[in-house]
Amino acid sequence: MAKDKKKKPMRPKALPPKGFRDYFGAEVSQRNEMLEAITGVYHRYGFDALESSGVETVEALGKFLPDVDRPNAGVFAWQDEDDAWMALRYDLTAPLARVYAQHRNELPTPYRRYSTGPVWRNEKPGPGRYRQFYQCDADTVGSSSMAADAEICSLLSDTLEAVGIPRGDYIIRVNNRKVLDGVLETIGLTEDNQDIKEGVLRTIDKADKLDRQQLLALLTSGRKDSSGAFIDGVGLQLQQAEGVLDFIASTGGDNQETLELLSQVIGDSAIGQKGLEELEEIALLLKAQGYQEDRIKLDASVVRGLGYYTGPVYEAELTFEILDEKGRKRQFGSVAGGGRYDDLVERFTGQKVPATGVSIGVDRLLAALREKGRMDHTAKGPVVVTVMDRDRMADYQAMVAELRNAGIRAEVYLGNPKNFGNQLKYADKRESPVAVIQGGDELAAGVVQIKDLALGARLSAEIETSEEWKAQPAQMEIKRADLVAEVRAMIKRAGGETDA
Amino acid sequence: MAKDKKKKPMRPKALPPKGFRDYFGAEVSQRNEMLEAITGVYHRYGFDALESSGVETVEALGKFLPDVDRPNAGVFAWQDEDDAWMALRYDLTAPLARVYAQHRNELPTPYRRYSTGPVWRNEKPGPGRYRQFYQCDADTVGSSSMAADAEICSLLSDTLEAVGIPRGDYIIRVNNRKVLDGVLETIGLTEDNQDIKEGVLRTIDKADKLDRQQLLALLTSGRKDSSGAFIDGVGLQLQQAEGVLDFIASTGGDNQETLELLSQVIGDSAIGQKGLEELEEIALLLKAQGYQEDRIKLDASVVRGLGYYTGPVYEAELTFEILDEKGRKRQFGSVAGGGRYDDLVERFTGQKVPATGVSIGVDRLLAALREKGRMDHTAKGPVVVTVMDRDRMADYQAMVAELRNAGIRAEVYLGNPKNFGNQLKYADKRESPVAVIQGGDELAAGVVQIKDLALGARLSAEIETSEEWKAQPAQMEIKRADLVAEVRAMIKRAGGETDA
Repeated sequence: MAKDKKKKPMRPKALPPKGFRDYFGAEVSQRNEMLEAITGVYHRYGFDALESSGVETVEALGKFLPDVDRPNAGVFAWQDEDDAWMALRYDLTAPLARVYAQHRNELPTPYRRYSTGPVWRNEKPGPGRYRQFYQCDADTVGSSSMAADAEICSLLSDTLEAVGIPRGDYIIRVNNRKVLDGVLETIGLTEDNQDIKEGVLRTIDKADKLDRQQLLALLTSGRKDSSGAFIDGVGLQLQQAEGVLDFIASTGGDNQETLELLSQVIGDSAIGQKGLEELEEIALLLKAQGYQEDRIKLDASVVRGLGYYTGPVYEAELTFEILDEKGRKRQFGSVAGGGRYDDLVERFTGQKVPATGVSIGVDRLLAALREKGRMDHTAKGPVVVTVMDRDRMADYQAMVAELRNAGIRAEVYLGNPKNFGNQLKYADKRESPVAVIQGGDELAAGVVQIKDLALGARLSAEIETSEEWKAQPAQMEIKRADLVAEVRAMIKRAGGETDA
Repeated sequence: MAKDKKKKPMRPKALPPKGFRDYFGAEVSQRNEMLEAITGVYHRYGFDALESSGVETVEALGKFLPDVDRPNAGVFAWQDEDDAWMALRYDLTAPLARVYAQHRNELPTPYRRYSTGPVWRNEKPGPGRYRQFYQCDADTVGSSSMAADAEICSLLSDTLEAVGIPRGDYIIRVNNRKVLDGVLETIGLTEDNQDIKEGVLRTIDKADKLDRQQLLALLTSGRKDSSGAFIDGVGLQLQQAEGVLDFIASTGGDNQETLELLSQVIGDSAIGQKGLEELEEIALLLKAQGYQEDRIKLDASVVRGLGYYTGPVYEAELTFEILDEKGRKRQFGSVAGGGRYDDLVERFTGQKVPATGVSIGVDRLLAALREKGRMDHTAKGPVVVTVMDRDRMADYQAMVAELRNAGIRAEVYLGNPKNFGNQLKYADKRESPVAVIQGGDELAAGVVQIKDLALGARLSAEIETSEEWKAQPAQMEIKRADLVAEVRAMIKRAGGETDA
């Protein structure tokens, strides 16, 4: 027994699982603010909120991840005590299909819904790549009208502007899978070549990172990548591969020109023709609402990686430049994408239910807004009421109560008050705008000291005693009765804000 | 092959896993509004947001569920590809302990944080009892001051009032585990009787549902419940059990009286005396800030079920009456609870870190607000622009764009426009305040019809054609140019609101 007691206890590691992380303070509130702005636009467009659970049955989720190379990986799954398999949702679209199939008799048709929340992917984590992240989706289920697709595009445009991406800094590109199908038909690939079609899709999806020769190699017999590894080709003949590349290069200066270029590459294909008509209709609807090619344009190079799209596909790209990790300029890139998927609900019901929608990569968009300086960086730390006399905690609490009731964020120092310097360091760490001090002398005189910490911040690291600190110029003695008014005035002078 | 094709395909069931559910429209936005009000108060108190991931390692989570009868159940857990065990968090306190232990060098001390989000329990679902639900917590880590506990109580009081529970309809009861320990010491139970102590805790926690005789039986040798099943007793002697019941009955008319009653039951116990002093300090601090016994009061009957509390415990109860499922009046009951837990972080670091906090049962509180009629029930459906002429979709889209740009929630009907009656049924289902109609005649005359659907709702079920519908009195012909102004006026006349 004595021996056991001496043994060092096994302690759990204070770490989240690999690939998960925590978000603190402004990271959380900025994301919430952005999501509120986004869902505000969604709501104004008539979309209704839906929150499904994070857990679904594996059979209901199905496998619709972009990573078709590992069809059995990608989700976190486990068995219930009844041996039923459950899994964390990997996106918000698969749960929507389940919800719509389940509640279709009570829901309006068409059903416009938005959802926002975490999704989980059981993938290898990497820099900036986490296994839990947020999505924010808007979908319309039950409408085959191209007006539904056009609406998703205008919704996306309005949303980007609402969160603070100025017009000119983004572009929404629109294409149609049916046009691609037409091209494949024209070059001699039929519906039976599903594997080849998906190989073509994945290759085109990487087109912006590779040159024409590399793409031709990938579409035909394969190529060695920069690491020397051989990547299998899709297996097209050279002429077919050239047909595919001609297609993705068919973007003109405006939508009219793009439509003409596309009509050349689809030849006589009926499905291609149908896709072209759909694009034309979307372009027309958008134009009528004033969305010109500077915001939303047809673009033959967009295909989206997901296999389940059946018609229009769209992608929102941020076009302003940032510096990459090596200091090179590059465009910020894609922050949202989506398209029409007419088959997802059919899995459950056996009946085709047309659907179209978009998913915003919340963390990517948030990073973009920070990059553009669109997130509020005003210090929003609380006023800190310091504790000079630990027996007078009730007085200090009364001060913070007054400040809070006036809408000013405030707190009393709750650590060990013995070392006053620690209280100031604490206020610093909290990015506090103002500290309040009342010792015995001040109490007797009916006054308090208030201190502008933004002004005093530069010196605070060297200050150890309250005496030195009081000598700084940013400090004022005010009447106790004027506490709220004077603190508010000091915060405003420093450029901050209070709730009221 | 031909046979295979005829076989009916296996379809996934369109259901969430057992014990999970979906939340629609107002359910989601009302919860969000309430959470925003709650976190607004938390923020004003100086608490910072923290969002940890839904997934933790099993070793970091530990087992701190109230259901000590099944120590190995209660969580959803699975093995990683590296064989490491991961689990969904079952509350927001265990992750906080992990986060604080991990980041303690960067975080301010004391660290006030709030978290809100879903938690998961692998428990048997029941009516109104789901396996995923929301919590909203505020905790202060790193302060042993009773001012931290008093602050949590006043925070809880302010929060309840901020979301719409009027003063007088709630009470926050405060007790102290150390006082209970003192009582147990006085009746002859020492720290070694951990099982008995937890048995006493669980029994007291059910005290409001049982009479004195039943409680005495449970604390001693056990009793048969109403179903005839025998429930084992805790194993106290009768005199000890009476001592426990005397303790939980020691609540006086005001805090002073309660403190006097408690001092009688703890006898000479040093730990009991310490608990009493802590309660006295909390009462004093709250009084100084103006929180009287009508909001927060000492109450000897509160113990909380969780084993990990080490000092003050608190519970918020809503005192207004509701009718239960059998039509009997009862108090709404508990919506939040918490207490001081000084040992959770120590698991990771080996060093004691004092902490105290509260958790609000979000769904319970939301149900209470609905019960009190505090949630906004104004129809917030969108204006529906109907489609009389499917070739003029662009015109209708332009109308909704105008309405949306003016801050009015609006949408165009995206289903098959052939049957006009279906469009009206759709608008009804959407709880639309106003429908907009423009056929060929109206277009030629430069006018549109707008229709107050709240007024027309009673008749709409019987209406099949647009002719009948137009004959209703709630319909107006207005100039196309006045669309926004007239729609806004109609919504306001119906008592609704627009964003702008």
